[in-house]
Amino acid sequence: MNFPSKLVKNAVEQLSSLPGIGRKSALRLVLHILKKDKLTVEKFGDSFIQLINRINYCSICYSISDSDTCEVCANPKRDTRIICVVEDIRVMMAIENTMQYKGVYHILGGLISPIDGVGPSEIRVEELIDRVNDNDITEIIFALSTTMEGDTTNYYLFRRLRDYDIKISSIARGISIGDELEYTDEITLGTAISSRMPYSE
Amino acid sequence: MNFPSKLVKNAVEQLSSLPGIGRKSALRLVLHILKKDKLTVEKFGDSFIQLINRINYCSICYSISDSDTCEVCANPKRDTRIICVVEDIRVMMAIENTMQYKGVYHILGGLISPIDGVGPSEIRVEELIDRVNDNDITEIIFALSTTMEGDTTNYYLFRRLRDYDIKISSIARGISIGDELEYTDEITLGTAISSRMPYSE
Repeated sequence: MNFPSKLVKNAVEQLSSLPGIGRKSALRLVLHILKKDKLTVEKFGDSFIQLINRINYCSICYSISDSDTCEVCANPKRDTRIICVVEDIRVMMAIENTMQYKGVYHILGGLISPIDGVGPSEIRVEELIDRVNDNDITEIIFALSTTMEGDTTNYYLFRRLRDYDIKISSIARGISIGDELEYTDEITLGTAISSRMPYSE
Repeated sequence: MNFPSKLVKNAVEQLSSLPGIGRKSALRLVLHILKKDKLTVEKFGDSFIQLINRINYCSICYSISDSDTCEVCANPKRDTRIICVVEDIRVMMAIENTMQYKGVYHILGGLISPIDGVGPSEIRVEELIDRVNDNDITEIIFALSTTMEGDTTNYYLFRRLRDYDIKISSIARGISIGDELEYTDEITLGTAISSRMPYSE
């Protein structure tokens, strides 16, 4: 692409550095931004500068927080002996939205992925071990994606934690609510049969 | 969505104000941005602030330019008597890439769209008429999208310009190069037959 302006070229390059945004989409977005007034665009740009300069992570669970301790960890009604291990705050937010969980979290900040060069030291594994050593923890729940990376991370964490006197569980894997069995993939269906649960009314 | 941080919420709201980016995608992008280093993110945010504060439009054709006159208008080899009317600089860039056009441009900055409340006064129609009045123009080429808005704008411009002694043309509409006729839609095929051209080897 031959840009008529270096400013436009720069903004397009910045936007297309984000995952899922190509150069053509980025140019469309930049032209959209140019139609807005100065103040709106300054606020837009400044939101990212503020974000990176003022962002704070919870000192306990490493979720993003505006204060030293996040709302979940600071809530006296939460059971701090149960830790749910998640990949990032998106999963934490999704679980919080279910209103089914009363324990606390540990944000790994990624999953082990040898193919992408992400080893255990790149994610917050040692921080989890430290937390288990220093506190009275009764249960750790793995809530990681059912992908190769999620399973690898599950297995690695299990090996690091199995010698502790802690209950280790994983969120249930089975048929999604509303799914029709004839269209469910074989691996999910197989897992659902072998992990069958006592029927309750 | 219940965000754990106002900074994240603000950045997500800013990104999801862009067309085609929903709140879930925006959150994914914000978490991606948070993994980058401070300087990179500051450059990212600053690129938009620089863009809106330093952007300049060509005083002749209204394309985006880093100087008072854009590269096309400033080029003495271009035929300034032929004006190609386009919606925005994306179309201008696409036509420039063909290297088939030696005239100059006029950037409307939008298309007439009554349904979106965009009338002729919202786009640069008067600027085009002024340009025709003040200069020696021999031909005006409409290069607008083949949509309802494009056709409305074509027709409006034609009515404003038809009394001038200027050749008015539109880019050819027909079968795209490489298209198979049996899969071409009826309207395109019908237009292509009624606008048939003399065969040339």
